Amino acid sequence: MILILNGPNLNRLGKREPEVYGKTTLEELEELCEDWGAELGFSVACRQSNFEGQMVEWIQGASEEGFKAIILNPAALTHYSVAVLDAIRAQPLPVVEVHLSNLHAREEFRRHSVTAAAAKGLISGFGPMSYRMALVYLADLLEGG
Amino acid sequence: MILILNGPNLNRLGKREPEVYGKTTLEELEELCEDWGAELGFSVACRQSNFEGQMVEWIQGASEEGFKAIILNPAALTHYSVAVLDAIRAQPLPVVEVHLSNLHAREEFRRHSVTAAAAKGLISGFGPMSYRMALVYLADLLEGG
Amino acid sequence: MILILNGPNLNRLGKREPEVYGKTTLEELEELCEDWGAELGFSVACRQSNFEGQMVEWIQGASEEGFKAIILNPAALTHYSVAVLDAIRAQPLPVVEVHLSNLHAREEFRRHSVTAAAAKGLISGFGPMSYRMALVYLADLLEGG
Amino acid sequence: MILILNGPNLNRLGKREPEVYGKTTLEELEELCEDWGAELGFSVACRQSNFEGQMVEWIQGASEEGFKAIILNPAALTHYSVAVLDAIRAQPLPVVEVHLSNLHAREEFRRHSVTAAAAKGLISGFGPMSYRMALVYLADLLEGG
Amino acid sequence: MILILNGPNLNRLGKREPEVYGKTTLEELEELCEDWGAELGFSVACRQSNFEGQMVEWIQGASEEGFKAIILNPAALTHYSVAVLDAIRAQPLPVVEVHLSNLHAREEFRRHSVTAAAAKGLISGFGPMSYRMALVYLADLLEGG
Amino acid sequence: MILILNGPNLNRLGKREPEVYGKTTLEELEELCEDWGAELGFSVACRQSNFEGQMVEWIQGASEEGFKAIILNPAALTHYSVAVLDAIRAQPLPVVEVHLSNLHAREEFRRHSVTAAAAKGLISGFGPMSYRMALVYLADLLEGG
Amino acid sequence: MILILNGPNLNRLGKREPEVYGKTTLEELEELCEDWGAELGFSVACRQSNFEGQMVEWIQGASEEGFKAIILNPAALTHYSVAVLDAIRAQPLPVVEVHLSNLHAREEFRRHSVTAAAAKGLISGFGPMSYRMALVYLADLLEGG
Amino acid sequence: MILILNGPNLNRLGKREPEVYGKTTLEELEELCEDWGAELGFSVACRQSNFEGQMVEWIQGASEEGFKAIILNPAALTHYSVAVLDAIRAQPLPVVEVHLSNLHAREEFRRHSVTAAAAKGLISGFGPMSYRMALVYLADLLEGG
Amino acid sequence: MILILNGPNLNRLGKREPEVYGKTTLEELEELCEDWGAELGFSVACRQSNFEGQMVEWIQGASEEGFKAIILNPAALTHYSVAVLDAIRAQPLPVVEVHLSNLHAREEFRRHSVTAAAAKGLISGFGPMSYRMALVYLADLLEGG
Amino acid sequence: MILILNGPNLNRLGKREPEVYGKTTLEELEELCEDWGAELGFSVACRQSNFEGQMVEWIQGASEEGFKAIILNPAALTHYSVAVLDAIRAQPLPVVEVHLSNLHAREEFRRHSVTAAAAKGLISGFGPMSYRMALVYLADLLEGG
Amino acid sequence: MILILNGPNLNRLGKREPEVYGKTTLEELEELCEDWGAELGFSVACRQSNFEGQMVEWIQGASEEGFKAIILNPAALTHYSVAVLDAIRAQPLPVVEVHLSNLHAREEFRRHSVTAAAAKGLISGFGPMSYRMALVYLADLLEGG
Amino acid sequence: MILILNGPNLNRLGKREPEVYGKTTLEELEELCEDWGAELGFSVACRQSNFEGQMVEWIQGASEEGFKAIILNPAALTHYSVAVLDAIRAQPLPVVEVHLSNLHAREEFRRHSVTAAAAKGLISGFGPMSYRMALVYLADLLEGG
Repeated sequence: MILILNGPNLNRLGKREPEVYGKTTLEELEELCEDWGAELGFSVACRQSNFEGQMVEWIQGASEEGFKAIILNPAALTHYSVAVLDAIRAQPLPVVEVHLSNLHAREEFRRHSVTAAAAKGLISGFGPMSYRMALVYLADLLEGG
Repeated sequence: MILILNGPNLNRLGKREPEVYGKTTLEELEELCEDWGAELGFSVACRQSNFEGQMVEWIQGASEEGFKAIILNPAALTHYSVAVLDAIRAQPLPVVEVHLSNLHAREEFRRHSVTAAAAKGLISGFGPMSYRMALVYLADLLEGG
Repeated sequence: MILILNGPNLNRLGKREPEVYGKTTLEELEELCEDWGAELGFSVACRQSNFEGQMVEWIQGASEEGFKAIILNPAALTHYSVAVLDAIRAQPLPVVEVHLSNLHAREEFRRHSVTAAAAKGLISGFGPMSYRMALVYLADLLEGG
Repeated sequence: MILILNGPNLNRLGKREPEVYGKTTLEELEELCEDWGAELGFSVACRQSNFEGQMVEWIQGASEEGFKAIILNPAALTHYSVAVLDAIRAQPLPVVEVHLSNLHAREEFRRHSVTAAAAKGLISGFGPMSYRMALVYLADLLEGG
Repeated sequence: MILILNGPNLNRLGKREPEVYGKTTLEELEELCEDWGAELGFSVACRQSNFEGQMVEWIQGASEEGFKAIILNPAALTHYSVAVLDAIRAQPLPVVEVHLSNLHAREEFRRHSVTAAAAKGLISGFGPMSYRMALVYLADLLEGG
Repeated sequence: MILILNGPNLNRLGKREPEVYGKTTLEELEELCEDWGAELGFSVACRQSNFEGQMVEWIQGASEEGFKAIILNPAALTHYSVAVLDAIRAQPLPVVEVHLSNLHAREEFRRHSVTAAAAKGLISGFGPMSYRMALVYLADLLEGG
Repeated sequence: MILILNGPNLNRLGKREPEVYGKTTLEELEELCEDWGAELGFSVACRQSNFEGQMVEWIQGASEEGFKAIILNPAALTHYSVAVLDAIRAQPLPVVEVHLSNLHAREEFRRHSVTAAAAKGLISGFGPMSYRMALVYLADLLEGG
Repeated sequence: MILILNGPNLNRLGKREPEVYGKTTLEELEELCEDWGAELGFSVACRQSNFEGQMVEWIQGASEEGFKAIILNPAALTHYSVAVLDAIRAQPLPVVEVHLSNLHAREEFRRHSVTAAAAKGLISGFGPMSYRMALVYLADLLEGG
Repeated sequence: MILILNGPNLNRLGKREPEVYGKTTLEELEELCEDWGAELGFSVACRQSNFEGQMVEWIQGASEEGFKAIILNPAALTHYSVAVLDAIRAQPLPVVEVHLSNLHAREEFRRHSVTAAAAKGLISGFGPMSYRMALVYLADLLEGG
Repeated sequence: MILILNGPNLNRLGKREPEVYGKTTLEELEELCEDWGAELGFSVACRQSNFEGQMVEWIQGASEEGFKAIILNPAALTHYSVAVLDAIRAQPLPVVEVHLSNLHAREEFRRHSVTAAAAKGLISGFGPMSYRMALVYLADLLEGG
Repeated sequence: MILILNGPNLNRLGKREPEVYGKTTLEELEELCEDWGAELGFSVACRQSNFEGQMVEWIQGASEEGFKAIILNPAALTHYSVAVLDAIRAQPLPVVEVHLSNLHAREEFRRHSVTAAAAKGLISGFGPMSYRMALVYLADLLEGG
Repeated sequence: MILILNGPNLNRLGKREPEVYGKTTLEELEELCEDWGAELGFSVACRQSNFEGQMVEWIQGASEEGFKAIILNPAALTHYSVAVLDAIRAQPLPVVEVHLSNLHAREEFRRHSVTAAAAKGLISGFGPMSYRMALVYLADLLEGG
């Protein structure tokens, strides 16, 4: 019912710069999200791609696949992908942008999000909890909270 | 146990630009936070000020007052208050920066947060739910989650 | 009926950089405004503060205090106070921004007004007459001119 | 005795973007100015041109034509005409720059005035009243107020 | 029925920098446009001026002269004339902005068009064919295509 | 004989932000192009991809596939894809860049085209007619017009 | 044989900001140029306009009028007139750009010359002598020096 | 006789980021200053505030309180407080700006001081010794050194 | 043992802008690299892709495939691909960034490398020899040189 | 009586980029200057250095050496040497800045002169004649022209 | 024991722009420093150079010459000499950067110090006293204060 | 036969910031280069200077001294020395720019090379191996590889 999309290099989670992104692997993160979703009463599907085009197509098609909302971690694409920005605008579902690390505490170029302008909002800096917070929000939203 | 600080003009919430900030008043928002805190098992104290200096002093003193964490909506101060940035760095508690509206979907100058660099992370765009998400995160953090 | 608010350092008027701001003191300026207001048929209340927070609260509360319009000289706050900008937007009265000196003929950083975007308009460069012009405008506006 | 100069496209006033510039036509505006001038005891001459060169020459020659002051709405020229800036400096009369709309509430490039640096001051955002305020100021100035 | 306006220095076409603008003279270009117009079933009037003010007045008056659309090559004015931008907005006809050369393949300052924001759209880089394409578009538009 | 390439999210045409891009779907647009091509006497092949890499390869291979020219709507890629820019330079066919909406009347970042520097020229703002104009131009060009 | 063109506000020379431009009037400057030209053996024609369009046309037509070179003081137009830049490129004569004052010792915006890129070179800061130096140069150039 | 003013967050000195600001507390710093002052033969009064408005008022009133000079550490206000800049200009005493840390070796935004333009000079980077150096300077200055 | 990755459009090498990139084709370049590698005693695998996502995945997986180092020519991706930057950081092998042309002697936007910050270093401008130099370096590095 | 100083790399004149700087060697240029000086009735001394420090010292000492004026071609130093700027200000003689090539027609970074702000004026683009023009000017100036 | 280095043009002190730098000559300044040093119990060596290279070498060699600290006034080099910045980093002694004038109250380009990032700190604006303050600081530092 | 030039502060190599530049001293680096040169069959001459002027003169004279190529590490001069840039252009030998550290992984201002635009290419980040790679390249180039 909720689609979680992870962008470029998040398949390396846990193995990659753990001082920035933490030790949780993508598999563990996805399991956490499934569990958290279950607690909140909805199913969660998780996908990851290193291809901007694939990210765009998953966003475009989510509604037709029957999803009710998207949690999106655009990773590196956050900072330049107008295509992902346009894809969010080109579909009807609410999108929550999440980041594991605090973008505002990193390199200057990471402080600007191209994609967030089209999202409902942005959650950045809480590690895997960023995803859980997005799920809590969507649970409330989808119940008409 | 958790201190919620709201910055300049948030005392006008509900009366002010409802198309941007929603219809909930500050009193209602504070009650919501208290209820959400209670659900999560901790007490919540809410304060609001239009004075940068007051915000700075509440942040500085929170630990000595016995709080365990701060949820901070710096409002207008987000964009220029180095004093609030320094205040966060000048104390030991985790700080979560929250915003009701999505900063990335507003005027250009609102896309930059001076203060977030010193916070744990940023939640922006979810209306009152931004505060609830912060509470959910802190519940997890303070329990050693 | 009309609230005149003067920002930081305007209490030093007449004593401070007379080549820029003229020799009229704040007390004299306020008397002039009261006289001009009287001529135009309305009462005028004058206040000055060096605190951004106080300026914000006077702007917020003006309507509830029974004022019909605000004449605002934000002084130094003109150039960085998003809080004053938001305060103007957070209340229903017409606000006229005034400056004694011509901002466009001074240092580069004084050419940009953060606050004017929320005001009805801007009057800059005419010494105490800037206030009188604002009164003339408001007399016309409040009479449905 | 006072020369009022309106720049490019102001001959389209009332017909052009009324949500920005209002419904008053140039003819009506000029009549208002003549009436307001009469009330204040001086004659007013109004001219409009779409040519920068014409604007420059009217400004240059105003003193020799016997005018005592200029009210100038440079319109589009505000934002790039160094020639108008230089023309103001190249003559002895006081010049008041006026604008119907609030430049600070429009496109970014309209927030900067090239010409205002050479004027006495700037009045922006009050519709036809911007001109009346300029007249009130000049009445005071010319009487040695 | 369609007004074609060519801006500064286009009277030098064919004689001026042929490696940039081609060998066709203005007279030949205007004849081409008249022929192309005839093929598409409407009359075409061509004018050229080196004066911004003249360009502004032709744009302002086109509707009253009975034209149904304007094809505008602002030439050098493209890059700074807010007066031409405002003139387009100050009248009701559709305006198509055309350029002989590809602005994006020339000096940096030519990549920005001040005027295009008010036009229907922009055609740049196809030599005289830029005008024909505009005519084809307008034929379709005016027929309610 | 002519290859028409549409970039990211154009498969959502008609469904996506119709106030910006119009109601025509991609299928309808492609049919229109085929019909217009037929009128002008050449066959047209239409392709769409959300992958930058795919766009690059279609551009690279067009000449070897036997095409004589390319009409390219890079969509979001317009603003950052140096790879598409290089691909245009890495092949011999004339390329016409087209856009449905007027880039100069949208967000600031859409006013800059990275890719147009390598194209013959740019057509922007005429809806589906942008493609027809490109076809008219190419008909002329390929006939040695 | 040599055409000297003076741009906006130079007709006010001597009367205007003498601390910047000196006390020589335009008439005196023109006489000086005629005398200096005579000494060097050629006739000099001097013209002044406050209209960009007129400047453009004089530059365009100089060769056909029989002039061998142009000395151009674009005055205010130096800083924004792409039309003058293009006019210089649109004709075959050598153009020497001159300024009475030292542009590099004035306001920041006067340090950039839009027009000089198309001139042979630039002479700035020597008062009337700037013109004489240009004449000396042209005497040498036209004699095949 | 000398007023020492410390700005926002300096009340946290010693407890706050000791690797940046050192281990000396504000109380200890103030005592050091009093001792150093005594050695140099004058009394020293120390104040600290987190409120910009309070800082402004202390600066404004120092002369009337009988002080002969001000040592000012504006802390965070250094980087944006035009109000403090104006306050220094609005009073007659010499002001020495001091900083404990070396502003030029920290974040980019800390390299710019808004307030120093109005001070006698700036001392930055020497820990508590920055204050002592200011006292040594003022001793010399006030003795007519 | 060493993986050589070539980015977008390098499959067009030799056919594309030979004045910039030389006449060697990709196949010839790859053979050269294999020969040079053989001379230095290690095997070389060469791959090329026009897809950012593919580049990212080859970089991520190189260590697990048994490679000891990567030579990377990101081509167009050099200038915007944060995904490639992150991919380099997300794996343990040394990466040498190479370019055939001298980036510093081309368009302004090519002088900035987004990706080089994560590489060991950069070699730019030596044609195919750029790759040989990288191989020489890696031979030394891998032998513990 | 007049000191001519040539900066870095001008000793390579004639051998270096003749399409930019011409074929005249430094020796020939110096002889030309001596001859031109002789014609105008004063002696000329020519020096060249590739060392900023040497240039600074020659400028500083010129007055004490008995020179009456300096002609300075700072060459590369034009664009960054604050030391040369300060040296000009630190001595009493009139300085004329000259350049062989037209700085405004070259790379962007050559359009800005750091040093010209302290000179009388600037002559740029006339090859060796730039020096002669400077001599003509100085002859006039020194004779009290 | 302490090395005082003065950069370009400081040999002109007292003779050069006294309204900016004061009337004290370099010789007088050096004597003052020697006296002040003597009072504080250490010997002082003073050197001045107009050559960046010489400044670099004195900084590099100071420790080997037996000095314990450096007081450096880089003068013009402050604003561009990365070589001086690197020289400070390339040696072990504490360096105090001093300036006679207040850099923040002068031209915009003087507000940025390239070199101060490598110094202990910066003292700017106190005339010769800037050096004395540095000596006071170093006396304290070297005594382990 | 090959000239190796090292710029400011490289004489401090090994003693200076070893975490950035490594532990090899300049003497050791020069010996390595001589050995590597010998292996490749040519003699190598190494020089170092802290003076920009000296660097310029060595570059200018290299061809006349009989060298066939230059390896240049401009060190700090990389970032501002237009004189070195011009010197490279003012002589006929191929120049390879080398850096020990990776410029793209350091301070922002080190990412831009002023001098590389005139070099054959750039090698940055490989410690002493940067020089060896340059030698390998030149061996190939000089043999007509």
